[in-house]
Amino acid sequence: MPSPVNRQWLLASRPSGMVGPQHLTLREQPLPEPGAGEIVVRTRLLSLDPANRAWMSPVPTYKAPVAPGDVMHGFALGEVVASKVTDIAVGDLVDGMLGWQDYAVMKPADVTRRDGRYRPEALMGVLGITGLTAYYGLREVGRPKPGETVLVSAAAGAVGSIAAQIARIEGCRVVGTAGGPEKCAWLTDTLGLDAAIDYKSADLRRALKEACPRGIDVYFDNTGGAVLQAALYQMNMGGRIVCCGNLSQYNAEKPEPGPIGVPGLLVVKRLRMEGFIVMDYFATRPQAEATLAKWIEEGRLKAAEDIVDGLEKAPEALAELFAGRNRGKLLVRVS
Amino acid sequence: MPSPVNRQWLLASRPSGMVGPQHLTLREQPLPEPGAGEIVVRTRLLSLDPANRAWMSPVPTYKAPVAPGDVMHGFALGEVVASKVTDIAVGDLVDGMLGWQDYAVMKPADVTRRDGRYRPEALMGVLGITGLTAYYGLREVGRPKPGETVLVSAAAGAVGSIAAQIARIEGCRVVGTAGGPEKCAWLTDTLGLDAAIDYKSADLRRALKEACPRGIDVYFDNTGGAVLQAALYQMNMGGRIVCCGNLSQYNAEKPEPGPIGVPGLLVVKRLRMEGFIVMDYFATRPQAEATLAKWIEEGRLKAAEDIVDGLEKAPEALAELFAGRNRGKLLVRVS
Repeated sequence: MPSPVNRQWLLASRPSGMVGPQHLTLREQPLPEPGAGEIVVRTRLLSLDPANRAWMSPVPTYKAPVAPGDVMHGFALGEVVASKVTDIAVGDLVDGMLGWQDYAVMKPADVTRRDGRYRPEALMGVLGITGLTAYYGLREVGRPKPGETVLVSAAAGAVGSIAAQIARIEGCRVVGTAGGPEKCAWLTDTLGLDAAIDYKSADLRRALKEACPRGIDVYFDNTGGAVLQAALYQMNMGGRIVCCGNLSQYNAEKPEPGPIGVPGLLVVKRLRMEGFIVMDYFATRPQAEATLAKWIEEGRLKAAEDIVDGLEKAPEALAELFAGRNRGKLLVRVS
Repeated sequence: MPSPVNRQWLLASRPSGMVGPQHLTLREQPLPEPGAGEIVVRTRLLSLDPANRAWMSPVPTYKAPVAPGDVMHGFALGEVVASKVTDIAVGDLVDGMLGWQDYAVMKPADVTRRDGRYRPEALMGVLGITGLTAYYGLREVGRPKPGETVLVSAAAGAVGSIAAQIARIEGCRVVGTAGGPEKCAWLTDTLGLDAAIDYKSADLRRALKEACPRGIDVYFDNTGGAVLQAALYQMNMGGRIVCCGNLSQYNAEKPEPGPIGVPGLLVVKRLRMEGFIVMDYFATRPQAEATLAKWIEEGRLKAAEDIVDGLEKAPEALAELFAGRNRGKLLVRVS
C-alpha cells in the first residue's frame, strides 16, 4: 500500500565505527510533484549494500558522500507514479539512486528502465547491479580458466554468492569463506561450492591450504582483512585478485595497514590486484543480463534474497548486514 | 687480463637484515673444462641488482634461493672461451646466470648470444634485462598515455632511470624519487625529468601533491615502502601501479605490513597493482631492443652505468647498492 506521505531517512550524524539506527532519523514530507523534465518514482525495493556505509563517511568514493541532514543515498527499484517527460510513462519500472524514501523526484538520465517480466527481487539482485558486479568482476577482471581454483570471500553475501556460482559454471574449483557453520553448509549444499571456510573459527592460512591444494588462481575479494592476508600467501604465480569490496574495514575507526606481501608478493608472484566499477562494462549489459537470466532459467544459478519488510526497518537492517546476518541480497520492501 | 684461476664468491651465511661482505667468502678453483654439450664462459661484466639480496634469503622467488656454500647467483655477460657444442663458438658474447665467478660452465639453453656491435656495458644495462624490464613494465603493465603523469621511485637506479626516460619519450609528465640532492639534480638536469623528490628529506605526501598537481596515473614502483604509501593517496581513478621491486624491504629483518589503502583505495579508485616478470614478454625482445637502441642513437635515452673494477669488490659493491650510492646500472668489471 502506498504511503500517504513521503517518509525519508536522513543521515543524522556520520558514524565513527559501526553504523547503527542512531545515525539516521525519519522525516515525513508531503508527496512530491514532478517539475518539467522530471518523474516521480515510488520506491518498491531498496537495496542495502556495504557501500551505504562508505557513503556515510566524509571521504568521497565514486560518488560524493551523504551530508548530515540529507536523504540517505540508496539504490532502489520503483514504479513511475507521475511523469513530465515523453519517454517514461506512469507504471514503468525503473531503478536508480532513489534514496531511502517512499518517493523520489528523478531526471530520466538518472534512472534505467527495467523489464517487468522478471521478479522485482531478481531485478535488484542477480539481474541487477549486484549480479553484474559479480559477473564482470569475475569474468573481466579475474578471468578464471576452467580447472583453476577460485576463492570468494563473503561468499554467502549478495555479490559473493553469485560470483562463486559463476566460477562454478566456468568450470573452476570454488572455495568460499563465510561467517558461521550454517552459511558454510549453505554454500556447499545449496550453492554447490567445492569447499567453504568459516572465517570466524578457522586458522585461515591452514584452512586455505587444505581447501586449495593447488593454490589460488583467482581471489574475488569482498572483504579485505584477514582473508586477503591469508589468500596472498596461497596465490599462485600469475594469480589475480579482484578487489570488489573491503567489508572488514568499512566500520573501522581508523584505517588499518594493508596486508604483508604488498607489494613484495605481487612482484615475486607476478600478481595482479585490481579494483573495478561495474558501470565501466555497461556497454555489454544486455548480453550479461541475458546470460545471467539464462543460467537462472537453466537452474545453474540460484538467486538468494533476504527481504526485510518496511522502510522503517532500513536502519536496523543495515546494521544486520554488517553483523553478517543476511544470506544473499539484502532488500527492504518499501511498497 | 684473464684470471689464471677461477675465483668464486660463495654465500657464507644467509643475511638477516642488511647484506654485507661478511655474508660472502672467496674461493679459488682450477679453471673448469666443458663436458659434452657444454661451454665455458669467462665473465666480463657482472650485474648487481636488488634481486641478489632476495636470492640470499631462504624464500624462493622466481628461482630457487642460493644455498650457503654455493656460488652466489648473478646475471653476467661473458665471452665463450671453450665450447663442446656446434652452434656456439669460442669468442662469442653471451649472457646468462654465470654467477659471481671468473669462469662458468654453461649449457647453451641457459645463455643468450648478444650482439658484439654494442658496448658491453649497454648490453648489460639499457639493452639488457634492465632496459627491457623498464620498457615492458612501463609500456605493457603501466600503459601510460601521452599527457598522463608518471611517478618512478628509485628513479636514479638502473631500471628507474630508464623507465623514467621512456615515460618522457611517451609524452608523459614524469616525476622521480631518489635519495639526496645530487641524484635529484641529475634526474632533472641530465635525464630531463619534470620534477624530482628527495625521499630522504621530503614530506613525501605533500611533495607528491606539489609535483603531481593533476594526480598520478602510473606509478612505476621500485621501492614499496613510504613512496608507495604516499603514491596511493595521490593515484587518479583508473591508475596503475607497476610492481617492479620492493627495494625498501629487501633488507628488512621481518616483513612489514602493506600500505594503508590496500585494498580500500584499489576498490574506490579502481586501481590496478600488477607485478610482472620481463621474461613473459620476450616474444618481442628483438623489437624492444631495436627501439631502445634507436632511442639511444637519437640521443633521447641516456644510458647510465656505474662500474666497479674487480670481482673481489663485488660484495662491497652490493652493500653500496643498498646504501643507494650508485647512479644507473651497477656493474662489476670482472675481465
